[in-house]
Amino acid sequence: MSFKSIKTTLIALAGLFIFTASQAQEIQRRRGPQVVSPEIAGDNSVTFRLYSEDAKSVKVNGSWMGFGENAEMTKNEEGVWSVKIDQLEPSMYHYNFILDGVSILDPRNPQAMRDGTRYANTLLIPGETSEVFQVNDVPHGTIEKVWYDSPTLKLNRRMYVYTPPGYASSKEKYPVLYLLHGGGGDEDAWTSLGRANYILDNLIAEGKAKPMIVVMTNGNPNQKAAITETEPEPTNAAFAMASDQFPVSLVNDVVPYIESHFRVLANSSNRAVAGLSMGCLHTQIVSLNNPEMFKYMGLFSLGLHPDDNNLKDIMKPLIAAYDKNLKTLQKNYKLFYVACGTEDFVYDGVQNLRKKLDDNNFEYIYNETGGGHTWANWRDYLTDFTPRLFK
Amino acid sequence: MSFKSIKTTLIALAGLFIFTASQAQEIQRRRGPQVVSPEIAGDNSVTFRLYSEDAKSVKVNGSWMGFGENAEMTKNEEGVWSVKIDQLEPSMYHYNFILDGVSILDPRNPQAMRDGTRYANTLLIPGETSEVFQVNDVPHGTIEKVWYDSPTLKLNRRMYVYTPPGYASSKEKYPVLYLLHGGGGDEDAWTSLGRANYILDNLIAEGKAKPMIVVMTNGNPNQKAAITETEPEPTNAAFAMASDQFPVSLVNDVVPYIESHFRVLANSSNRAVAGLSMGCLHTQIVSLNNPEMFKYMGLFSLGLHPDDNNLKDIMKPLIAAYDKNLKTLQKNYKLFYVACGTEDFVYDGVQNLRKKLDDNNFEYIYNETGGGHTWANWRDYLTDFTPRLFK
Repeated sequence: MSFKSIKTTLIALAGLFIFTASQAQEIQRRRGPQVVSPEIAGDNSVTFRLYSEDAKSVKVNGSWMGFGENAEMTKNEEGVWSVKIDQLEPSMYHYNFILDGVSILDPRNPQAMRDGTRYANTLLIPGETSEVFQVNDVPHGTIEKVWYDSPTLKLNRRMYVYTPPGYASSKEKYPVLYLLHGGGGDEDAWTSLGRANYILDNLIAEGKAKPMIVVMTNGNPNQKAAITETEPEPTNAAFAMASDQFPVSLVNDVVPYIESHFRVLANSSNRAVAGLSMGCLHTQIVSLNNPEMFKYMGLFSLGLHPDDNNLKDIMKPLIAAYDKNLKTLQKNYKLFYVACGTEDFVYDGVQNLRKKLDDNNFEYIYNETGGGHTWANWRDYLTDFTPRLFK
Repeated sequence: MSFKSIKTTLIALAGLFIFTASQAQEIQRRRGPQVVSPEIAGDNSVTFRLYSEDAKSVKVNGSWMGFGENAEMTKNEEGVWSVKIDQLEPSMYHYNFILDGVSILDPRNPQAMRDGTRYANTLLIPGETSEVFQVNDVPHGTIEKVWYDSPTLKLNRRMYVYTPPGYASSKEKYPVLYLLHGGGGDEDAWTSLGRANYILDNLIAEGKAKPMIVVMTNGNPNQKAAITETEPEPTNAAFAMASDQFPVSLVNDVVPYIESHFRVLANSSNRAVAGLSMGCLHTQIVSLNNPEMFKYMGLFSLGLHPDDNNLKDIMKPLIAAYDKNLKTLQKNYKLFYVACGTEDFVYDGVQNLRKKLDDNNFEYIYNETGGGHTWANWRDYLTDFTPRLFK
């Protein structure tokens, strides 16, 4: 018996054999009550359910909750645990069940995503604000999972390249956005958690964003590819955060590869770089060290953190690069976009960054939102940022 | 708080703030003992561990076990459940824990895969026989996630296209293998569970297989794309099995798209089609109804099942197509490859198929292996099949 779950196998078997009544009863017994979870009501309240007669406690942990919060589920006489969550705003959420202290997937919800080394279910509450990252009836771009050589990191590595609808059948050249993930993430994060390809599809279809290529790299300098592909090579977020080698490889290895293998407009007016959290650190490093390379920059949810013990060593040269190169950048850039949530733990660092920019009379767009260090914010920032590019 | 798990968030926070001693203790309490799971010993025995003080029972269900078998885990005084599994042959396996009756992922193993609507952890036991589906230091092809129009199914749909190493930088034209998944699967299955891209990378690097394009479609005629992309649209394996619409769309929509958008050798000598289970049914339908279209066919783990209640309606026209077109196929084909495991529940149907071929003096290669209806077999069949193509 392979990976095929008991259920799938039973369906397959049921397709090929006739069961006796006692076999059918046995199947029903194994399955237990066929609960529905999650169930979204008309008022956008959501009921979660899990069948376990033996569990001692079951909770829900959802991305709409505060840090450390859970919702307790209660058990009925059939062994079905459930809890109803009040109305949620239309958006894309993530959640896990916590079964006897263990974080698990909702076995009745086939929609789940990996965030670094963990898996969680996704929950889409449809509505106007969540339309931009849904799969709508619009032309879709292509995602290419490309392997390239990085002499800088001494690795053959993988990245994702989004080419916009029409790319394959046209001769046109396109501008490029380099889009960088955060600590613990990898080249998969911006499409799976960030829905970047669908956001672009939808904005391009509406005429809001220009058709562009989006390059999503792996920012962990020790990793060839996402952990699903390779033998476990720990991401080591702290190491990745503290290293400036990925930004060097972006300039020396990634940009030349893209500009020689894809039909791109290879000049600074058609190059953008943006990133979240660690990717925002990398965005700053790469922009300030190469102030004539990108005319568009997107800084999502990180700033300057000179007093942070773990970032001190990488902040020092970054701040020196600001002091040395901000004037050159100022002569060349078209957009410097900074976004942060008021509840984000990096908020103060973002204010440090703003002060540095203000002190230098450096113009930037500042998008302060609610919320914290979340994919809900990063999807929104990307949706707000990309229409401003290459215009 | 978004999808970031408590642990990831704590690491991120730890990177930016200094904790007090009591906060550090709270973090440790939440985490519990830091167990290692799975732990592969030198003799290829494997120990699985899960921390749960409250669980009533924990088991392991692995793809190396027989149907319905589980291994019971036992709890130590720290609340850590564990079981040691005897030596496993080098291969890629899948497993789940069953915690108080609920199938869950091993929270300490970041390597997991989706099989249709379920998730399971992967376990790679390295060795000579598993090398062919590992990410080795060889040139890697590209996977493109492409959306195409299917007028037949009235859907804009997604498929995966593997282009071999060197495709992007050469002007060469390539042969094409159309590779079809089984019931419950989708366009993601052959790369995630089947490791098809790495199998091809490795066989091409060794000079065993010719560089080729591999097209992996979604065989569920009601689905636009895998369930991770879209709102839940039930795959409906039974419906997909009973429909001949996907094979029609393969011929009318997919092949023309590939031959006009990729650099391919567009003739029957350079077209192959293969599939597992439901994909094997589709392979037979498409080959027998279009006997001059493909010169190479791979039939993995399905045969002729005229007496099966659920397949009766689709078997009747298929058997009629054999009777009508096998002679035409016989004049044109180069390879008809049939593979099945002796423990597979479709074994008898495969023998029906062999009888049909033998009765018509139709030559074919028959690869009978051990094992059942498993990805372990399908990876092996693909590894055995692709070196025989386009030669």
